[in-house]
Amino acid sequence: MARAINFNAGPAALPLAALERARAELVDVEGTGMSIMEHSHRGKTYEAIHNQAIALFRELFAVSDDYHVLLLQGGASQQFAVVPMNLLETGQSADYVLTGGWSQKAFKEAKSVGKVRLAASTEKDGRFARIPKPSELDLDKSACYVHITTNNTLFGTQWHDFPDSGSVPLVADMSSDIGWRPIDVSKFGLIYAGAQKNLGPSGLVVVVVRKELVERGRKDIPVIFQYRTHAENNSLYNTPPTFSIYLLRNVLDVVKQAGGLAAMEKHNRKKAELLYRAIDARPDLYRCPVDKDSRSLMNVVFTLPSAELETEFISGAQKRGMVGLKGHRSVGGVRVSIYNAAELSWVEALVDYMDGFHKA
Amino acid sequence: MARAINFNAGPAALPLAALERARAELVDVEGTGMSIMEHSHRGKTYEAIHNQAIALFRELFAVSDDYHVLLLQGGASQQFAVVPMNLLETGQSADYVLTGGWSQKAFKEAKSVGKVRLAASTEKDGRFARIPKPSELDLDKSACYVHITTNNTLFGTQWHDFPDSGSVPLVADMSSDIGWRPIDVSKFGLIYAGAQKNLGPSGLVVVVVRKELVERGRKDIPVIFQYRTHAENNSLYNTPPTFSIYLLRNVLDVVKQAGGLAAMEKHNRKKAELLYRAIDARPDLYRCPVDKDSRSLMNVVFTLPSAELETEFISGAQKRGMVGLKGHRSVGGVRVSIYNAAELSWVEALVDYMDGFHKA
Repeated sequence: MARAINFNAGPAALPLAALERARAELVDVEGTGMSIMEHSHRGKTYEAIHNQAIALFRELFAVSDDYHVLLLQGGASQQFAVVPMNLLETGQSADYVLTGGWSQKAFKEAKSVGKVRLAASTEKDGRFARIPKPSELDLDKSACYVHITTNNTLFGTQWHDFPDSGSVPLVADMSSDIGWRPIDVSKFGLIYAGAQKNLGPSGLVVVVVRKELVERGRKDIPVIFQYRTHAENNSLYNTPPTFSIYLLRNVLDVVKQAGGLAAMEKHNRKKAELLYRAIDARPDLYRCPVDKDSRSLMNVVFTLPSAELETEFISGAQKRGMVGLKGHRSVGGVRVSIYNAAELSWVEALVDYMDGFHKA
Repeated sequence: MARAINFNAGPAALPLAALERARAELVDVEGTGMSIMEHSHRGKTYEAIHNQAIALFRELFAVSDDYHVLLLQGGASQQFAVVPMNLLETGQSADYVLTGGWSQKAFKEAKSVGKVRLAASTEKDGRFARIPKPSELDLDKSACYVHITTNNTLFGTQWHDFPDSGSVPLVADMSSDIGWRPIDVSKFGLIYAGAQKNLGPSGLVVVVVRKELVERGRKDIPVIFQYRTHAENNSLYNTPPTFSIYLLRNVLDVVKQAGGLAAMEKHNRKKAELLYRAIDARPDLYRCPVDKDSRSLMNVVFTLPSAELETEFISGAQKRGMVGLKGHRSVGGVRVSIYNAAELSWVEALVDYMDGFHKA
C-alpha cells in the first residue's frame, strides 16, 4: 500500500511504527491469547502498559513529583468545563486569554460554571492573527488561574514563549502543541491535551496538574469530575480507554527511541522552516495571514489570491496523495498540519508542489 | 496462537472476526493509506463508519425515531452524574432502585447533583442476592425519572422483566446487559451502556434517549454535558473516540451477520443454562448465592466451601487457559462472565472442568 501524505489537523498522522506494533499485537498482545482490548483494566498485562504510558510521559516531559499525570476521557472540550469546575472558587474569578476559536469555546464553557474575566484578546474582525504581547495581558493577581491555548489550529498561531502569571496558576490547553518540543512543566499549574495530535488516537486527554491544585480542588462537584478521584486511583477509578492508552504507550515509545523531545523539535523546526520559506518565496501567490512572530510550527496556514485558486491547489495536491490541506470550515484557505508523525519527505513533496504551482 | 478462554467481566472478550477485521485494516483502512485513527472525524471515510455504527445499532435494537442514539465518552460512571445533571429538575427528585454496587455508585453520584429518593433496595448484610419484586418498588409518581441497573456484574443478578414506571421515565444502566437479547426500547426514557461488555472496547458509552427528554433537559449546565449538544451534532460536536466507534461498527456487523439479537439470546441462554446446571448438580461443592429468579445470564457467580478451594479452582482453570474467573475484589468467589463473544465451547470446557473438580 502507498501511505497517504497526511496533513490532517487532528485526528492526525501517527508514527507508522506505533501502528504496526498495534497491528502485530491486535488479536494477541504479549502472547496472552487476547487483544489488549479484551484484557481487564485490573489485570497485570493492562496495568503494566498503563503504567508504562505514564512513566514514559513523565520521563519525556521531565515531569516532577509535584505533578500528577492523569489519563482521562472526554477530550479537551470536556476539560473546558472540568477545569473551572475544579479550580474556580465561589466569589473568585479566572482569567482567559483569547487567541482563537478554541480559547473562545473554553471561555464560554467556563462562564457556565462560574465567574470569568477577559485578560486579553487578539481578535480583529472575527479573526486572530497573532499572540498577545506580554504588555497586553491584563492579569488579575487574585484570579484562580489564567487560561491560555498555546497553539491555535484554526488560525495557525502559537505561543513561542509562555506568559509569566506570577503566583496565579497558568492553565494551558496544549492539545495541538504538546510533544513537539521540550517544555518546562514547572511553569504551569495545569496542562491538558487531547491526544489526537502528537500523542495517540482520539478519546483520550492527558492532564498534567500540580498536586497542590488537586488537593485544594472543589469537593462539591460529582466525584467523576474531581481530579483527586483520578489522581488517587492512578487513572483507574473507572474503566479507562484501554486501547487509546496502549497506543499512547506505543507512540511515546517511538518518540523516545527517536531521541525524545529535543530530537522532535529539530525535526519539526526543519519542516516548518521549509514550508514558511516556500510561502514567503512567492508573495504574489501565497500569503500567510499570521504575524511572523506568532506563526505556528504545527499548523501552517496560508491563502491564495482567490477561492478558485485555493480549490485548484488543494485538488492538485490530492492527486499527489496529500490529504487534509483544506483550512478549517470556519476560516478557509489552506492549512498544513505537521505534527511529529508528519515526515520530512511529505513536507518536501508539498514544497516541491508549491514551488511549481502556477509557475509562468 | 491459542486464543484464551476469556471470562473477563469487562473489558471482555470481543468477537474474533471484529478484531481480525481491525487488524487487517489497522494501518490502511479502505485503501486510503491511513489508519482509521489517522482520519479526520470530519472526513468522508470516518463519517461513513460513524453513521454505519449508529444505523446498525438502530436496526439491531429496533430503535424508533422517538429516540436519539448518542456515542459519548466517559463511560457509565460519567453518566451517573450526567443523567441527573440533564434530567433532575430543581425542587423535584429522582427515584433510585439499588440492586448492587453500581446502582449504589449511581445513587451516590446523583446525590451530589440534586435530590434523590430510595425507591427500593435488596441489600442485606452488605450483599445483594436478588432483584426486587414489583410490589417492593415504592415509586414516586412525580419523580423526574426512576433509575435501575439492569444487570449487576458484582453480585450476578439481572432484571428479567423491567418494572413499569408508568408515566415516569425509566432510566437504565445496561452496561453489562445490552446486546445479548432483543429489548423493547420504548419502555425506557434513557438507556446508557459502557461499550466494554457486548458492544466494543472501553472508552465509549452509548446513550439511547427519548427525544422529548433531550428537549426538556436542563440548559444551565456546561454545553459538553447537555445531551442536546450531542443530539444536534450527531455525536460529532467534539472529536469522538473514532477507533472505539469503528470497533463498535465491526462488532455490530458481526452480530448482524450472526442473526441479530434473537440469535444472540439463543446462544446466551444455552451457555447460562449449561453453567447453572453444572452449579446446581453439585450442591456440596458449588453454591450460587443468588435467588433463582434473579440469576444473571451474563455474570454467573458461585462460591466453593472455602477460600482455599476457590483459589485451587481458579488456578486449575487458569492452567486450562481460562482467565477472568476471580470474583470482583469487593465480593469474592468465582464469577463467569459470558457475554456474546464468549463461545459455547468455552463454557463447555469450563463445565467439563467443574464436573470433574474434586470428584471422589
